[in-house]
Amino acid sequence: MAPGDDRKVTGLVAATFTPLDAQGEVNLSVIGPYVDYLTEKQGIKGIFVNGTTGESMSLSVAERKVLAEEWCLRAKGRMDYVIVHVGCMSLKDSQDLARHAAKIGADGIAAISPSFFKPKTAEALRRFLQEVASAAPTLPFYYYQIPSFTGVNVPVKDVIEDIEKLIPSFRGVKFSGGDLLDFGQCVGYSKPHWSVLYGMDEQLLAGLAMGANGAVGSTYNYMGCYVNEMISAFETKDLVKARTIQFKIQELLCYAIKLGFDTGVNKQLMSDVSGLHLGPPRLPLMPCSPDLAQLLLQKYHSIFD
Amino acid sequence: MAPGDDRKVTGLVAATFTPLDAQGEVNLSVIGPYVDYLTEKQGIKGIFVNGTTGESMSLSVAERKVLAEEWCLRAKGRMDYVIVHVGCMSLKDSQDLARHAAKIGADGIAAISPSFFKPKTAEALRRFLQEVASAAPTLPFYYYQIPSFTGVNVPVKDVIEDIEKLIPSFRGVKFSGGDLLDFGQCVGYSKPHWSVLYGMDEQLLAGLAMGANGAVGSTYNYMGCYVNEMISAFETKDLVKARTIQFKIQELLCYAIKLGFDTGVNKQLMSDVSGLHLGPPRLPLMPCSPDLAQLLLQKYHSIFD
Amino acid sequence: MAPGDDRKVTGLVAATFTPLDAQGEVNLSVIGPYVDYLTEKQGIKGIFVNGTTGESMSLSVAERKVLAEEWCLRAKGRMDYVIVHVGCMSLKDSQDLARHAAKIGADGIAAISPSFFKPKTAEALRRFLQEVASAAPTLPFYYYQIPSFTGVNVPVKDVIEDIEKLIPSFRGVKFSGGDLLDFGQCVGYSKPHWSVLYGMDEQLLAGLAMGANGAVGSTYNYMGCYVNEMISAFETKDLVKARTIQFKIQELLCYAIKLGFDTGVNKQLMSDVSGLHLGPPRLPLMPCSPDLAQLLLQKYHSIFD
Amino acid sequence: MAPGDDRKVTGLVAATFTPLDAQGEVNLSVIGPYVDYLTEKQGIKGIFVNGTTGESMSLSVAERKVLAEEWCLRAKGRMDYVIVHVGCMSLKDSQDLARHAAKIGADGIAAISPSFFKPKTAEALRRFLQEVASAAPTLPFYYYQIPSFTGVNVPVKDVIEDIEKLIPSFRGVKFSGGDLLDFGQCVGYSKPHWSVLYGMDEQLLAGLAMGANGAVGSTYNYMGCYVNEMISAFETKDLVKARTIQFKIQELLCYAIKLGFDTGVNKQLMSDVSGLHLGPPRLPLMPCSPDLAQLLLQKYHSIFD
Repeated sequence: MAPGDDRKVTGLVAATFTPLDAQGEVNLSVIGPYVDYLTEKQGIKGIFVNGTTGESMSLSVAERKVLAEEWCLRAKGRMDYVIVHVGCMSLKDSQDLARHAAKIGADGIAAISPSFFKPKTAEALRRFLQEVASAAPTLPFYYYQIPSFTGVNVPVKDVIEDIEKLIPSFRGVKFSGGDLLDFGQCVGYSKPHWSVLYGMDEQLLAGLAMGANGAVGSTYNYMGCYVNEMISAFETKDLVKARTIQFKIQELLCYAIKLGFDTGVNKQLMSDVSGLHLGPPRLPLMPCSPDLAQLLLQKYHSIFD
Repeated sequence: MAPGDDRKVTGLVAATFTPLDAQGEVNLSVIGPYVDYLTEKQGIKGIFVNGTTGESMSLSVAERKVLAEEWCLRAKGRMDYVIVHVGCMSLKDSQDLARHAAKIGADGIAAISPSFFKPKTAEALRRFLQEVASAAPTLPFYYYQIPSFTGVNVPVKDVIEDIEKLIPSFRGVKFSGGDLLDFGQCVGYSKPHWSVLYGMDEQLLAGLAMGANGAVGSTYNYMGCYVNEMISAFETKDLVKARTIQFKIQELLCYAIKLGFDTGVNKQLMSDVSGLHLGPPRLPLMPCSPDLAQLLLQKYHSIFD
Repeated sequence: MAPGDDRKVTGLVAATFTPLDAQGEVNLSVIGPYVDYLTEKQGIKGIFVNGTTGESMSLSVAERKVLAEEWCLRAKGRMDYVIVHVGCMSLKDSQDLARHAAKIGADGIAAISPSFFKPKTAEALRRFLQEVASAAPTLPFYYYQIPSFTGVNVPVKDVIEDIEKLIPSFRGVKFSGGDLLDFGQCVGYSKPHWSVLYGMDEQLLAGLAMGANGAVGSTYNYMGCYVNEMISAFETKDLVKARTIQFKIQELLCYAIKLGFDTGVNKQLMSDVSGLHLGPPRLPLMPCSPDLAQLLLQKYHSIFD
Repeated sequence: MAPGDDRKVTGLVAATFTPLDAQGEVNLSVIGPYVDYLTEKQGIKGIFVNGTTGESMSLSVAERKVLAEEWCLRAKGRMDYVIVHVGCMSLKDSQDLARHAAKIGADGIAAISPSFFKPKTAEALRRFLQEVASAAPTLPFYYYQIPSFTGVNVPVKDVIEDIEKLIPSFRGVKFSGGDLLDFGQCVGYSKPHWSVLYGMDEQLLAGLAMGANGAVGSTYNYMGCYVNEMISAFETKDLVKARTIQFKIQELLCYAIKLGFDTGVNKQLMSDVSGLHLGPPRLPLMPCSPDLAQLLLQKYHSIFD
């Protein structure tokens, strides 16, 4: 998928977890079966690698490279898109990862805003993204907004305005925020060859109503098959059915949030539902307690079985 | 509309502005023509009086009473619902206003959470609301959530669970927040005789997709006719048309937000669009500058004419 | 204490709790003994009435008036200053209370910023305060900043610059925030006849080091005698002793915060230490549980006995 | 300075800027003259390298290593302490940097909390810090708290309680927050061989009053000589003089904040005051405009000359 290639990202994209072994080291051996599981059991046709779900900020650059490589290798020919997230606090590291992504045959790259030093204006953020994208000019580039993690609230609309003048390879947005005013303006502004992907799984139906082309999220790892049904219902204008499925997904997430939900807990739930051994998260995330893991798995089955 | 009466609130409800004269005193004489305007020009069939839009927190209890009285008088027989907001920082004042609303024939009352002292749990908030509602037990009671103003983020779902045991007159929610996980859970939980009303005008389409029964907002004062078209399009499953209208509304609001939007500016825009003399806001809100007023009116006409 | 009277407020001022009876009604009978307690047991010479500690925002205007009257009556000749807080969400109510304070012989008035509608600029806040102060032009006026409650972060320095041109009766600030950059600038800017009073009891020593003239706080109700010792130690440049006392106060507050501290808990602790019957707080504050009350009283005695 | 070595860090420590050349690459050649300037012109005897001021989060691990090495080399025998900050988002990177710091002869290491994934409890943060410190067990370890950047508000007191059981090399805290309740509790709890260093330059006097052993900050790069005078005044109990100096520092910082202050602007001011060529900051920080640079330099001279 090259910039000249107008294949849009649509449907569900799973933001992958990073498998670690018991010593907390990257465990590449799980990635093959992981791809199998997503394609065969969840109906997933695209992956977003080394993002927030993948704990990329807790990984070294070297670890991110071997992971990206393995995901590309295993997903080749099985997935429609492998988008590698290359965002880092450091521009240098992001550029390094962008060049690497091009070399290993990724279908696209995405970058988050740095969040320790926060860009104070859309202009500063655009310049940062431009420097990242220009390190891999042949790859479709996506901006990844997730203000609950970054604390960066620059409107996405301000980031993407006339952005192809700065970033010719720009192809869309992963919008993981609740501001649907900004999201709607992005949908309204977006070019036909861009993808506006919504990233809040718990309210995807709202994102679809506002015109999202597709979705990227962590829960599609283990609920993708149900969300695909929701999307089909939406497309056939059966909103009652779509809502029923959305509310089930919300029920699980509400339950998890009340008990304490984070990427570590999420990862455990994926392990338990899929049977894959994804291991614990890396510090400062803490492992999910066995009790919590059991409660969540029970809830999952009580809702979806 | 009594608690025994299961007439639901549906469609658009305008949150009314409070007319003030040049000296900053309440100007009742505008209310009659204001009701005419809403019914005749904007297709509005319900009003929400003395809410945030109505600057209720800047009014004395005595002022709120005369306003509520005049709105009820003028809207009687012309509107389907006159809901009087009685929320205050002080429980005493809220109870006083609730009793008054019953006396003057309001169709329902609503209350916001106190926000100086913030309830720390759903339990504390429920008890507060119970005390308010019990002062007017014959009137349908609505909880009004608006976290951007109150800073109170208790999930609405936690407030409304089994709430009829505490508040037999409970009939619904005005949900003016962006958390559609919570909103969806409220829709899923709500009883057939409740109304779940969405309150963020800039993303009403998302609220409708999630199952809102209707909407309450300030911009319906001057864009109600367009929003009614959007709702019709949504109901006939013409999402493309609905989105087109929603994006126009967003365009106006984005423009206003960039230039500096608040209740004072909003009120000026309503004056300018409607021709009603609503006057300035009360301090600490500042009057809208003439330049800003002109820019917004031009933008309004450029979008909707 | 009239504006022409340059008597500064110095030393400790107790922000008083509002006594309620078992039915939650204002209980004036406790106020006489309360004044006795403060003067005789805690060495307190000034009171700040109907402030945050006094739950003023949960009281009706009528209640605030009878309370202010009783405090003035009982404290006359026994306290050096009775400052009546008249800040409200509504300017009308604040002006009403300011006029009343003048009539009953208060030594000064103070006002907080409205916090539902937040002034967006120093200019808007100054105009609001001007309108309040002008309703009682013969009374010394103090601006009361408490951003943790109001969410209003306008620098105090910007509020007080040249403020006597707008408010000739301006006499100082109750600064209840942690921004000592702003606080220091206020101290540096303040006129000789102004009082810059610090309001964060847990770090008063820092406020004194930065040049505070005195302090207003809730914990001086029951720790005033110890804080007076701390101030004396500070004045004699015995910082080691001052710190020892400050750390004890911090120890109690840290303990309380971990267990859940708010104005209701604070009020219970005052009742338990003083033996006065101050009653529960008003909703949305919840009564302090007996278990928590006992733990805090034990901690108090373990630290100070 | 080894863990067995009870030499405490006292007085002023400058958090160094990272010199970049016109291409944005690390410029080691400035570091020698930079050390000369700090020792000869500012009376600085300790440096904190690769911290927030040094834009460490915008640097690659390799860059941080060469910088740390050069600072150690140039400061050896001239400074009392070279503390190398090794905190990163990734534990792996932090451990790598900690091992490197030991190898190059740093006098101590410090680490910030990860801030993309935020530790949710003191326990999670302590475990993270333990893993970092254990990679360089012979070096004194300092925890660096700066909630305005990290958004991590775990009380430092909770982090340091019994911390030597987890981190035998623990030697203190760089506390760059405004919560003096927490700070005071840390001072009260700290062991004789620990250093509690305050990090908010604009209110250092308050930190000293609360018992800080010393200070680490960015503005000591260009105002160290004045702050040393302030500390002397404080130590001789001349609070009036100390305050006069503190207020001057505040005046400059207030002025800068109003015009737009960040690490890039700060770095430019250091270049202009010192004559060193520190270069621009790295994206997402933007270069300081020449106009702003000139205004700040003028203000600096108007205050201190």
